Amino acid sequence: MALVKLIEYAEANAEVKAVYDDIMKTRGVDWINNFWKALANDPQQLRRVWQNVKQVMGPGTLDPLVKEMIYMAVSVTNGCEYCTYSHTAAARKKGMSEVQFIELMAVIGLANQTNRLSDGLRVDVDKQFKP
Amino acid sequence: MALVKLIEYAEANAEVKAVYDDIMKTRGVDWINNFWKALANDPQQLRRVWQNVKQVMGPGTLDPLVKEMIYMAVSVTNGCEYCTYSHTAAARKKGMSEVQFIELMAVIGLANQTNRLSDGLRVDVDKQFKP
Amino acid sequence: MALVKLIEYAEANAEVKAVYDDIMKTRGVDWINNFWKALANDPQQLRRVWQNVKQVMGPGTLDPLVKEMIYMAVSVTNGCEYCTYSHTAAARKKGMSEVQFIELMAVIGLANQTNRLSDGLRVDVDKQFKP
Amino acid sequence: MALVKLIEYAEANAEVKAVYDDIMKTRGVDWINNFWKALANDPQQLRRVWQNVKQVMGPGTLDPLVKEMIYMAVSVTNGCEYCTYSHTAAARKKGMSEVQFIELMAVIGLANQTNRLSDGLRVDVDKQFKP
Amino acid sequence: MALVKLIEYAEANAEVKAVYDDIMKTRGVDWINNFWKALANDPQQLRRVWQNVKQVMGPGTLDPLVKEMIYMAVSVTNGCEYCTYSHTAAARKKGMSEVQFIELMAVIGLANQTNRLSDGLRVDVDKQFKP
Amino acid sequence: MALVKLIEYAEANAEVKAVYDDIMKTRGVDWINNFWKALANDPQQLRRVWQNVKQVMGPGTLDPLVKEMIYMAVSVTNGCEYCTYSHTAAARKKGMSEVQFIELMAVIGLANQTNRLSDGLRVDVDKQFKP
Repeated sequence: MALVKLIEYAEANAEVKAVYDDIMKTRGVDWINNFWKALANDPQQLRRVWQNVKQVMGPGTLDPLVKEMIYMAVSVTNGCEYCTYSHTAAARKKGMSEVQFIELMAVIGLANQTNRLSDGLRVDVDKQFKP
Repeated sequence: MALVKLIEYAEANAEVKAVYDDIMKTRGVDWINNFWKALANDPQQLRRVWQNVKQVMGPGTLDPLVKEMIYMAVSVTNGCEYCTYSHTAAARKKGMSEVQFIELMAVIGLANQTNRLSDGLRVDVDKQFKP
Repeated sequence: MALVKLIEYAEANAEVKAVYDDIMKTRGVDWINNFWKALANDPQQLRRVWQNVKQVMGPGTLDPLVKEMIYMAVSVTNGCEYCTYSHTAAARKKGMSEVQFIELMAVIGLANQTNRLSDGLRVDVDKQFKP
Repeated sequence: MALVKLIEYAEANAEVKAVYDDIMKTRGVDWINNFWKALANDPQQLRRVWQNVKQVMGPGTLDPLVKEMIYMAVSVTNGCEYCTYSHTAAARKKGMSEVQFIELMAVIGLANQTNRLSDGLRVDVDKQFKP
Repeated sequence: MALVKLIEYAEANAEVKAVYDDIMKTRGVDWINNFWKALANDPQQLRRVWQNVKQVMGPGTLDPLVKEMIYMAVSVTNGCEYCTYSHTAAARKKGMSEVQFIELMAVIGLANQTNRLSDGLRVDVDKQFKP
Repeated sequence: MALVKLIEYAEANAEVKAVYDDIMKTRGVDWINNFWKALANDPQQLRRVWQNVKQVMGPGTLDPLVKEMIYMAVSVTNGCEYCTYSHTAAARKKGMSEVQFIELMAVIGLANQTNRLSDGLRVDVDKQFKP
């Protein structure tokens, strides 16, 4: 249960509606997910965060599906339930296969294991790894 | 300063040397980084963790560079210094450009922001995101 | 579902009841929340943790509402569901407005973003920031 | 040692210089800290992240010093070294006393303790805490 | 709701069934928990992770119950719900008493508190603690 | 470099000296580590945190060495450098062998791996694990 009221499209003010419209158009969907409906309690923040997402996740040098899988890697490592579901759905929509999904999980799991082994052994960074 | 002695190749036993040899051959390098030298205090663990890395980071459905960037995303999110340096070096060796590096950072930063916004707002997972 | 039995007031021993009474009196409420009912399985730990909370969250140089918002910032960053709900409720009771709540989320989200950007870029601490 | 080249003012292009100028003007300082010099490798990202910081940390309903302390709470909880130094320096510049600093640490420490106790005991959220 | 189909024993292929059989035999149980049923979507990963668990949690120099409590400490610190439930159940099966459980929680809570106090105060490591 | 002045014994007030004396007596050492010297800027907090440590890490149902290893597991999982060094030193002083140290690391690494696999696969808790 969200800690704030979810602002539905019908009750949103013009500023919020404009962002909602841009989200739906950019993503090619006809609905708004709860994350944005919660953020809409602060229209300026809604617009700012959406602009961040739109700019960062838009065209660049990394493949859109790769970006979604990176988003998933962060979300899983942070244990964020909402983000794991939403970005897995987004990655599947962008073409992630079931084999890629489970292979992604293997990389995330492995990285978490060796991260903590490195932290526990307190190994110094090799000079060869320094830029 | 590592919490255990680093086992150099010259002083390693046959079991450890075999793993070291496989690491160098697989990666096409002529040196062993500190992580493995620390793990070598337990030859069985050294071999097990290396087998994990070799299997997970080996050929699959995800591009080798993509896997390294996913590894970086986890390492940065965990704040692991050693892993961030070592996997950034590995990704650059596999062809990651400077533009890709800084774009990757943008995705990681953004994901950490929206992860915590979702956690703070406690939004319910939309039914459309459920598999 | 809690991993231990929740100790209700009626079934609590004298030591636990004394802590429960102090919690209700200090907070001006007539009920005990589940966190304390779980901890009460170890009366000594219940008293110790409560004394910590009472001392740290009691009068000091920081405003009580500010302390609750700091508590929320930690809880959200840790992804702790129970703590996010309970300290948001506490902050609202102490006067946090809806506008302050959503502004607090913006700061928490932003800090998580730049924390991980700093960790990923591995920037050295400027000498001007050293005390 | 940063993973990217730090872009000094003298060598920055016009777009980066404009952001640097705005940072110095907004903060009333005559130097740029390493975080921005690293981000400047991607001028668009530099401007975007700075606009985020400027908007979120600018005037609002929360006191500027309170916002810095919230930033510190997140940074400490994430174990981010750079951010802990930089935002502690910023908070002191905005008037945080030594007594407030150490009291802030007490709240952060306590919250991390009870966060994990809640997570470990797996207590259900009390209905009274639901909005 | 799991993000992948759970593979039941009856529908598993021979490779998966062999791992399931080994899990049940090793643990002396007659059922497979959801974690393995989800991983079984990638039989090779299922076998690899199970071999890791079997080797690490098998006989060694640390007591089996101690290993489970260490597993719990990590799981609670990461806020992993599934792992906290499953490893608490495993520890109880191996003899963890209710008094030990609640004392374990006290250590985990305390460590999280002093970890973040150390991170916040940014104290240098004493030379006496260096190996 | 610590964010606060370290309070040396010679310059400490009576209240702080009393805690320092108790720490040295309880631990059988003749020096005070930096963590306490930093906390001593707030004598009341110094005493409170020390009382927590003394009570939780004192005699109970868990072995003192086991408690130190649990402390290490939390510290490594949080990536806390100071705590990892100090509690590893403490565990070694209490008899942890090199074989136990490296086996402990294996358990910590494995737990971090399966924690994130569970979080990523979003598996439901089996009813058999519910208390």
